[in-house]
Parts: sequence; structure tokens; C-alpha cells
Amino acid sequence: MPRKITADDLEDLSWGAAILGTGGGGNPYRGMLMAQEALREHGPVTVLEPEELDDDDLVIPVGGIGAPTVGLERIGRGDELALAFRALERYMGRKARAVMPIEVGGGNSTGPIRTAAELGLPLVDADGMGRAFPELQQVTLTIFGITASPFALGDLYGNTTIMETIDNAWAERLARACTIQMGGSASMALFSMSGRQVKEAAVPRTLALAQQIGRALREARAAHENPVDAVLQVTGGFRLFLGKIADVDRRTATGFSRGRSRIEGMGPNQGEQLEILFQNEYLIARTEQRVLCTAPDLIMLLDAETGEPVTCEALRYGFRVAVLGIPCDARWRLPKGIELAGPGYFGYDCDYVPVEQRVRG
Amino acid sequence: MPRKITADDLEDLSWGAAILGTGGGGNPYRGMLMAQEALREHGPVTVLEPEELDDDDLVIPVGGIGAPTVGLERIGRGDELALAFRALERYMGRKARAVMPIEVGGGNSTGPIRTAAELGLPLVDADGMGRAFPELQQVTLTIFGITASPFALGDLYGNTTIMETIDNAWAERLARACTIQMGGSASMALFSMSGRQVKEAAVPRTLALAQQIGRALREARAAHENPVDAVLQVTGGFRLFLGKIADVDRRTATGFSRGRSRIEGMGPNQGEQLEILFQNEYLIARTEQRVLCTAPDLIMLLDAETGEPVTCEALRYGFRVAVLGIPCDARWRLPKGIELAGPGYFGYDCDYVPVEQRVRG
Repeated sequence: MPRKITADDLEDLSWGAAILGTGGGGNPYRGMLMAQEALREHGPVTVLEPEELDDDDLVIPVGGIGAPTVGLERIGRGDELALAFRALERYMGRKARAVMPIEVGGGNSTGPIRTAAELGLPLVDADGMGRAFPELQQVTLTIFGITASPFALGDLYGNTTIMETIDNAWAERLARACTIQMGGSASMALFSMSGRQVKEAAVPRTLALAQQIGRALREARAAHENPVDAVLQVTGGFRLFLGKIADVDRRTATGFSRGRSRIEGMGPNQGEQLEILFQNEYLIARTEQRVLCTAPDLIMLLDAETGEPVTCEALRYGFRVAVLGIPCDARWRLPKGIELAGPGYFGYDCDYVPVEQRVRG
Repeated sequence: MPRKITADDLEDLSWGAAILGTGGGGNPYRGMLMAQEALREHGPVTVLEPEELDDDDLVIPVGGIGAPTVGLERIGRGDELALAFRALERYMGRKARAVMPIEVGGGNSTGPIRTAAELGLPLVDADGMGRAFPELQQVTLTIFGITASPFALGDLYGNTTIMETIDNAWAERLARACTIQMGGSASMALFSMSGRQVKEAAVPRTLALAQQIGRALREARAAHENPVDAVLQVTGGFRLFLGKIADVDRRTATGFSRGRSRIEGMGPNQGEQLEILFQNEYLIARTEQRVLCTAPDLIMLLDAETGEPVTCEALRYGFRVAVLGIPCDARWRLPKGIELAGPGYFGYDCDYVPVEQRVRG
């Protein structure tokens, strides 16, 4: 019997996806409500494992682009991702076999579920990152030579564009410029690829993982167990720091939410200070003495009591948070992956060292 | 026998077009050389009068977008307009009957000639302005409800985009944002329309007029007659001012060349000062006492000795210039035309009064 996602799965899935979204990837609550509405109207969505795809199936990923601070405040039409998907299909003159999320995140995992429901298509359980990243070309797909183009970009006003760029960095550049004009958030269908390419280049089973994380979190809370421990167990992650948010410096500029947050240590970290740097997503976690974790490994902040994810746009003074480091997919650790999304790419002067080595070293 | 444009026609045509280009519309010398090369390679281009089009023929205008200051310094591939044209045809799934210039100008009249030669298609003797204007939606076509979308935009790197916007102001907004990313100049195919729409909404016979102006200028110079008088006679324009350029304040910002020039009066205007405001094109000419001419009427600066057009990017201290005002096409004087391209649109606090009334009044 084929695996299905139903409206009842969405709560676990969206909380888990928000945790894998490393602070970005859209608001989980909004995304959940919109996907629930679609599943109630159109019925459950069939999920395909990457291995179930034929090598020459056409798969089209979809996702939002822009600053989460804007995405949170602007309520869209809801069908923008489906419109972008259909526009790209029309342009390519081919029908896709399935939808896929381009990244994991509170909104960017549930948006494609909604889209698959609206389009009546299955959803591939994989994505282009296994996490969220700020820039469009920052996907494992780029590492394997898959092009973002041709891609479709649309907004809530009804403007749509189809672009064919000479490389994925140009795709980011032109898509970002349009997104800014479109008010800071937009919807995309991009990196269309074959079933064979999905199997090679995409990060598999991230919807299942998100749902598993969300379930572990919910069950731990119901059993009055430590929800942060439950998340660590499922993700294979590490506790990096425990503290209270003392300062948030955030600005929405050049189409991104950028900034830093200072966290004052509590408990085991009493007397220490952690700095988190972000650009839509959390990218670097460091104390005054040493770097604790960097992209492409996942950095995530959870409410220290409830285990709920704290996304970048929700950072607020006084929150007590557990900071987690989670190893990224192995594809990111290839030299091209580090070049594409390591600390150097974001302008930070430190080498990439896998989080498990940093923690154990 | 069908009318043809040959390489020998281009010198007259490009100088005349530069005069109708009101300071913008691209560099005439560069445009001429590139079109001459194409005509020598592909042979003469057949010219169609608007009346020769069938009502349901598809006509696709092409033209450059961006700051002329940038266009002058970046040498393109040459075939960008043809690539944009073909991209739009592919997207629309229809073959066009003919190419048309979107505006008149040194580069934007000769570029479409080159394009027609490369594509082996006829060129319609009409354009969307009868002059040049800085913004994409500022065409008589907008007045008659013709949409810029779908349109194609491409750059010299090989990036191409197809856009469908909800109105022509959005087309300008998104195309401009991409053009800035593309380095400040790009090539477009836009405002595709039927033969019937060309006859109603486009400004007819502007290639013929440009050629006639260029010829009058050349013949006057050969006969040692006053070249400025020759231009006035063919265009029905007026002498507004004679003077020496005393100051140029020009910046390339938000994708445009913007600025102002101060001209100190000579001869009949001794002791007076004229200010010219421009945004790619000359838009307002005024003395301290009164406004002499405003868009959508044409303001043009000619070298006072040779009659050669002085485009915005060529404005330099010390040039002696005759400032001309030329009545615009009657379509621009419709209320929607004044709203779209009158002094109020550009933020100047004065009413539009036809130049012939200002001169005679």
C-alpha cells in the first residue's frame, strides 16, 4: 500500500521540518494550517521513495524564496507554488511525475505537500538540502551538476517569470532581484530533474525524518520527558549550548533576514557567551573561545522547556534555548559542498570541521 | 517593388533616429556599425508599412533596456535582440510576421534592423513611441491597452527570462531589476501585437522620418547651409535655445542615467540660462522664467555648428548646442498619454502644454 501524508501527519511533520530548517525555511504554523486545508479538500498525498521513481521520470521541486520575516507577515494566495509548477511544466512542454520540496523547513516542507494535493500528484520524500539554506544555488543538486534553470518564479500578485540562466549563481542573482521587487517573498519551481538525478543528488527521506522528529518531540512532552533529548536521539545531534537570548540584531536587507544573536550561558554554560550568526538560517555558532558548529552542519535553537523550534524571525530577548548541532548529509561534506555552503562562502574566516569532530575534539 | 533598407541607408537613418531619440535610445555610431555589418552579411531588410500588415499578423517589437552610459561602454554579442525575439516566439508557440523597433533612437532603431536581417524577417516602419522614453511601459501601445507581456529579456552573458506580468508597470519593475543585475543593459522582445494593433497604436513611418532627417542634415552640411534649420524643417520643430553647456550633473542610478545640465545662453539667448532635466532622455527644458518644452514633446540638443545630435551620455562642458523642441505624435497628447509620460509622471510640477503653444504663446 502506498505511503500517504494525511492532515493528521502535518503537526509532527511541520515541527520536525522546522527543526531541520535551522531557523529558516518558513513559518511552521502557517505552513501547517495551509497544508491541512489542502489535504482536507483534496485528500491525502501519496509519497514516493526516491527508489520508486523511474530513471527518466520528470520531478519538479518547489519552494519559497525570500526573507522569512516578510513571508511571515504577508499572507499569500496559497496556490503560488502550484502556479509556478504548472508554468514550468508548460514552458518545458512536459508533464512531471511528482513534486518535491526544494528544502526542508517549516513552510518549505508543508508548501510542497499542499502543492502536491492541489495538483493531484505524488510527493517525493527527498529534498535538495536536508536542511534549509539562504541562497537558491545552495543545494546538493548543484554539487551534482543539476541546473536550477529553466525555473519559474511567481508572486502573490499574479506576476510570473521563467528564467534560463547560465549557471545556478545567476539563477540566485536574478531570482533574488525579482523577489525583492515582488515585496520580499515569492514562490518557485526549479531544479527540475530526472528520477535518476533525484536518487543520486537529492537528500532522501527528509519528510519521514521530519515526521519522526516531530513525533519524538510530541511523545516526550506527553510523557514529561526531556524533549530536547528526544530530538537529539532521532537526529544524531549534539547539545552545543544552553542559555538565554540576551541580544538580537536583525535586519531585512538585500532580500534576506540577516543578523546575529548573543546568548548568555545558563546551567552547564553559566558564565559563557554564545554568538549565533544567521542569514535566513543559523550559519555559525561560536563562543569567545571557539567555534562550536558551522554550516553546512545544522544549527538549531529549541525552546529549552518545550523543545519547540525557535526560527530566526522568532528570536526574542529572554527566550531560554538549547542550541543543537546536527551533522549534515554526507553530500554537503564533498569539497564542492563546502565551497557552496561552508563558512568561507558566507564570509566567515574559519575552516569547516564536522560538528561531531568539533564536539568530541 | 518592396521598400528595402540597405547598408548605405544606415548613416542617414541612424543620425536621424538619434535626433528623434531625444538624447537616449542608444549610441548612434555603435548601432550603425553593428547594423551595417549585419546588412552586408545578410543583405537588405524589407520594410513593411503598417498598412501592409494583415490584421492578424503577429508583430514582435525589440529594443534595448538600461542606462545608455552603460550600453555605450559594454560591447554586446550583437545577437541579443534576435535571441530575445526567438525566445518569445518559442514561448508563445507562434511565428512572427515581422520585427518592429520598440522606440526610435540611435541604437534602438538600428538594433531592430540588424535583428530583422539576422532573422530574415521584414521590419515594420513604425515604433511604440515616435521618440525614446526611459521606462518600458511608456509607449503609445500602453495607451491603447496593449500589454508588454509576455516578454523576453536577455543579456550578453546568455541569461534569458520570460515574464508575464499583471500590468506594464510591473513589466518595467521586474525587467529593470533584472537589467541592473545583468550589469545595467539588456535586450528585450516585448509588446507582441497584431497587425491591427500596430495600425491603431504604434507611431507610423518613424524609420522613414529618421532617414529623411538624416538626409536633410547631411545635404545641408554638404551645401554649407544651416543644418539645424534643415532638421527643423523636416521635423516641424522649434528652436528653443542656443547656448554653451556650462554644467552636467549625471549619475547612473537604479538602472538609469539621471541628471541635469545647465546651458549658458549665446547669441539671441545671451544672458539667459537653460536647465535641461534628463532620465536617459531629455524630459524638461526650462529657463529661470519659464518652461520651454516638456515630455512627451521631443527635446533635442544638436551641435550648433554641425547639427549632429548630442545624446545624454555625450553631454560635455563647453559644447555649443541648439536646443530644439519637436511636437510629439498625437497619441501622446491623449489624457492617458500625458499621464504615462507627461511632466507629472516624472515628478515635475508643471502642466503639459504642447510645445507649439508654448513657443507661440
